[in-house]
Amino acid sequence: MGSPGALAGWGLLDYKTEKWALLAKKGYQERDLDPQISVITKLKGVSVTQIEELGNRLWDVADFVKPPQGENVFFLVTNFLVTPEQVQDRCPEHPSIPLANCWADEDCPEGETGTHSHGIKTGQCVEFNGTHRTCEIQGWCPVESGTVPIRKPLLVQAENFTLFIKNAVTFSKFNFSKSNALDTWDATYFKRCRYDSRYSPYCPVFRIGDLVAAAGGVFEDLALLGGAVGVRVHWDCDLDAGGSDCRPHYSFQLQERSYNFRTATHWWKASGVEARSLLKLYGIRFDILVTGQAGKFGLIPTTITLGTGAAWLGVITFFCDLLLLYVDEEAHFYWRTKYEEAKAPKVTTNPEQTEPASAPPCVAAQVS
Amino acid sequence: MGSPGALAGWGLLDYKTEKWALLAKKGYQERDLDPQISVITKLKGVSVTQIEELGNRLWDVADFVKPPQGENVFFLVTNFLVTPEQVQDRCPEHPSIPLANCWADEDCPEGETGTHSHGIKTGQCVEFNGTHRTCEIQGWCPVESGTVPIRKPLLVQAENFTLFIKNAVTFSKFNFSKSNALDTWDATYFKRCRYDSRYSPYCPVFRIGDLVAAAGGVFEDLALLGGAVGVRVHWDCDLDAGGSDCRPHYSFQLQERSYNFRTATHWWKASGVEARSLLKLYGIRFDILVTGQAGKFGLIPTTITLGTGAAWLGVITFFCDLLLLYVDEEAHFYWRTKYEEAKAPKVTTNPEQTEPASAPPCVAAQVS
Amino acid sequence: MGSPGALAGWGLLDYKTEKWALLAKKGYQERDLDPQISVITKLKGVSVTQIEELGNRLWDVADFVKPPQGENVFFLVTNFLVTPEQVQDRCPEHPSIPLANCWADEDCPEGETGTHSHGIKTGQCVEFNGTHRTCEIQGWCPVESGTVPIRKPLLVQAENFTLFIKNAVTFSKFNFSKSNALDTWDATYFKRCRYDSRYSPYCPVFRIGDLVAAAGGVFEDLALLGGAVGVRVHWDCDLDAGGSDCRPHYSFQLQERSYNFRTATHWWKASGVEARSLLKLYGIRFDILVTGQAGKFGLIPTTITLGTGAAWLGVITFFCDLLLLYVDEEAHFYWRTKYEEAKAPKVTTNPEQTEPASAPPCVAAQVS
Repeated sequence: MGSPGALAGWGLLDYKTEKWALLAKKGYQERDLDPQISVITKLKGVSVTQIEELGNRLWDVADFVKPPQGENVFFLVTNFLVTPEQVQDRCPEHPSIPLANCWADEDCPEGETGTHSHGIKTGQCVEFNGTHRTCEIQGWCPVESGTVPIRKPLLVQAENFTLFIKNAVTFSKFNFSKSNALDTWDATYFKRCRYDSRYSPYCPVFRIGDLVAAAGGVFEDLALLGGAVGVRVHWDCDLDAGGSDCRPHYSFQLQERSYNFRTATHWWKASGVEARSLLKLYGIRFDILVTGQAGKFGLIPTTITLGTGAAWLGVITFFCDLLLLYVDEEAHFYWRTKYEEAKAPKVTTNPEQTEPASAPPCVAAQVS
Repeated sequence: MGSPGALAGWGLLDYKTEKWALLAKKGYQERDLDPQISVITKLKGVSVTQIEELGNRLWDVADFVKPPQGENVFFLVTNFLVTPEQVQDRCPEHPSIPLANCWADEDCPEGETGTHSHGIKTGQCVEFNGTHRTCEIQGWCPVESGTVPIRKPLLVQAENFTLFIKNAVTFSKFNFSKSNALDTWDATYFKRCRYDSRYSPYCPVFRIGDLVAAAGGVFEDLALLGGAVGVRVHWDCDLDAGGSDCRPHYSFQLQERSYNFRTATHWWKASGVEARSLLKLYGIRFDILVTGQAGKFGLIPTTITLGTGAAWLGVITFFCDLLLLYVDEEAHFYWRTKYEEAKAPKVTTNPEQTEPASAPPCVAAQVS
Repeated sequence: MGSPGALAGWGLLDYKTEKWALLAKKGYQERDLDPQISVITKLKGVSVTQIEELGNRLWDVADFVKPPQGENVFFLVTNFLVTPEQVQDRCPEHPSIPLANCWADEDCPEGETGTHSHGIKTGQCVEFNGTHRTCEIQGWCPVESGTVPIRKPLLVQAENFTLFIKNAVTFSKFNFSKSNALDTWDATYFKRCRYDSRYSPYCPVFRIGDLVAAAGGVFEDLALLGGAVGVRVHWDCDLDAGGSDCRPHYSFQLQERSYNFRTATHWWKASGVEARSLLKLYGIRFDILVTGQAGKFGLIPTTITLGTGAAWLGVITFFCDLLLLYVDEEAHFYWRTKYEEAKAPKVTTNPEQTEPASAPPCVAAQVS
């Protein structure tokens, strides 16, 4: 009798692979990869800016969060460049714009415009300042100065602002819901607490400075020239364990090191002329992304995982056969033992005496 | 001859599992799980508010939808709290703010601020009203009153507003597109119709009150303190059937029972001083989420499904063998019948007379 | 001895299917289907509108992009209909509104309103113009004219605007990041370059006219009545090849052929009355969708792919058996050769002499 030890060895390996898939990958669980997600954000804090012309000015949440709706993507203003009281008029283009510099009117074709220009050329070459002559344009005048913002961000106190992320997930396949906020009766809890992954994982209030640092950024740098920070909230819930360990995992990522955009406020001057203040806003864009999955024991996925694994049983037999039949030096003996000659009985009842007339398509006739 | 009935029984079970996977899960179909989606929303309706100071005021879509662009996430204002004509000044902090209450100036360190405060402390303790003394702050004054809004939402007629959801999906893998709106020549159809899952599933016009009710909410409650409602549009299309049953399925979910945010409108007072009206807006946030998948017969997924199922044929044989060889009391007999002793012919041609010198790695030599 | 040729033929087919899955579908790779994505957009350009009442007016990015934040979904204004200086007052409803037309006051129930009406009926039937009489309403007056915009879009030069899409993907599973922008020291490169799939695939600056054309739209048509264009950026990265061929693939899709929304700017008239300018904005909505996946060799997926394929080896054997045992005319002979009668030895040691008392559940006793 042959020793089944070697096969047992291979079978053990196979069993371990399958066990691996079944346990480590939770192949026995039915999964809900597509939860219903709700996110509401709220920023809190105030900051003072000291600009010479304007004096002290206090900024609060209605001033520095855009858009204000509390969505999952929002922008926190930390610095800005104002071009106040622009009106539709004629003025010299800024020298930094391509094709703006000129020596004579011929350098400024009337009506020409470019992707980066601030208006339509009038056809005249005029003095911009003591050192530059540029084409005159028709547009919002005077044009934006184009200088980089001053060295210190204007809303440097934004570092101490707090971000409240209210997030709920619903795994409708398993009829299970959970929120990232502690279920507490203490109305002031969320006014006091700060998130800490170890000590207060259920306090979803983040200090902006900590959040930027966790993403790998330096707050002063981001505040000066802007940036983008991604906050990922991931739920990986094993509902077989009752859902008690189903909690959010936060991760932070610095997406961009520079971010700004322009916006304007319009009004009518006393003279009936439309004016606007152009703002180039620098700041940090936050992008809250929630993902989640939940698993619960299910018969079908267990069947499929086992089924895939089961296929390996066949493969191992197949390879052992190959080894014995073709590679081993005693192959001829195993060949004879494994395959028995099967000849179709045509004339007599003794199959050994005749030759098969026509072989059926699968004559392999592997006895096994 | 052994009865193959029992095996047939197990095989039938196996066949059913596989049939299950093949038919119920449509394992024979190639799937497109990632359609291209387009959503446009449009709210319609008008509401009158009656506020003592302001008199009757009519609100229309340009007033109560934020942002107005018709995106898949938007906010419908149903209630608000106005703090009109704030200017940058000094005034007493609101008593509800932490550390705002004071007895003497020493309780108010100059320059101190907090996450929830409305400004920077000036260092003085002043009278807030007859019963409270609070620290004076520099900021937007006067501060927001902090009272809860009145009992009845101001835009109670929002219940009768309608939401038009224009949604198209394109399954690029199968070159198939469909819209959720009836393809009609009647220009007034969408002005008249209302969605009903049974009678008019192709009318994508929803009454807000009905929509909130379907999500499990009470409109008056949500309108008063705000809330968030998710609308899921799901497309599950079997394109083997020609796509005629490929229609959107709507489901509604109440995500939040409280929702508000602050925004402000700024202007210049005649005196050249900047003023703002601070608005705390309560309302319902709608979040339209479209998901979809389509399937069509494909050779590869059929092969894979059958392949996974096929593995079970091997498993059943394996377990039957195990049962017969180890569990059954007649095991010894089956063992001898199944495994034939295979000894390598070393010296003589009769394999029965010698012992194998060295067993090859897979000596299992399972004849079967 | 039977010819194993036919089986080899089937096996070859099986091997090819499996090879197919392993190579074409990259079944040997572990995959990251859920990259972290960052998108920033920036539009550039200026356009002049010539309206009789207002004279030449230049529009720049602060005027025609809404919202201005540079998100992945934004709206480019190309046409508009202004209803200037509306105030809360009484005026005749527009005749195009359902139930607005009237003959007498009885046709206009006081307080009635509709989903599409511009205000609340006052109960009076008044003259709208020379040909129509409509119900008087209380609301923002005068009502919007409802005429279609003029034949030529007002911001026709928007065709030459450029869209800069700054996109980065991070496959955290493989610790791999990449940006769609060429990594260059030339500060003016992105001011000069234009995207071309063949010659400059790393220049993410798109001309709006080209982009609309690539989506299958006609710019003039979209600019007049609005529309929506989807831009898909897809990353399919084979990190076994070192990631050098990991580049974005752009595709463009025309989602909607009509798009508009209303918004308003409010101000206080000198008399203390609130006024607003109602804008019906037509334009093109852009929706940048980034998807991505990356693959790298992994042991587990290779095992699973091979395992599923391996199951087919068993299936082929099974079908050959079926063919030989039931279909072939010599089936009886093969049946006898394959299945050996296995009777349990109850009394004597000779199993051939007795009948099995009770068959175990799997009596199939398939010798093979």
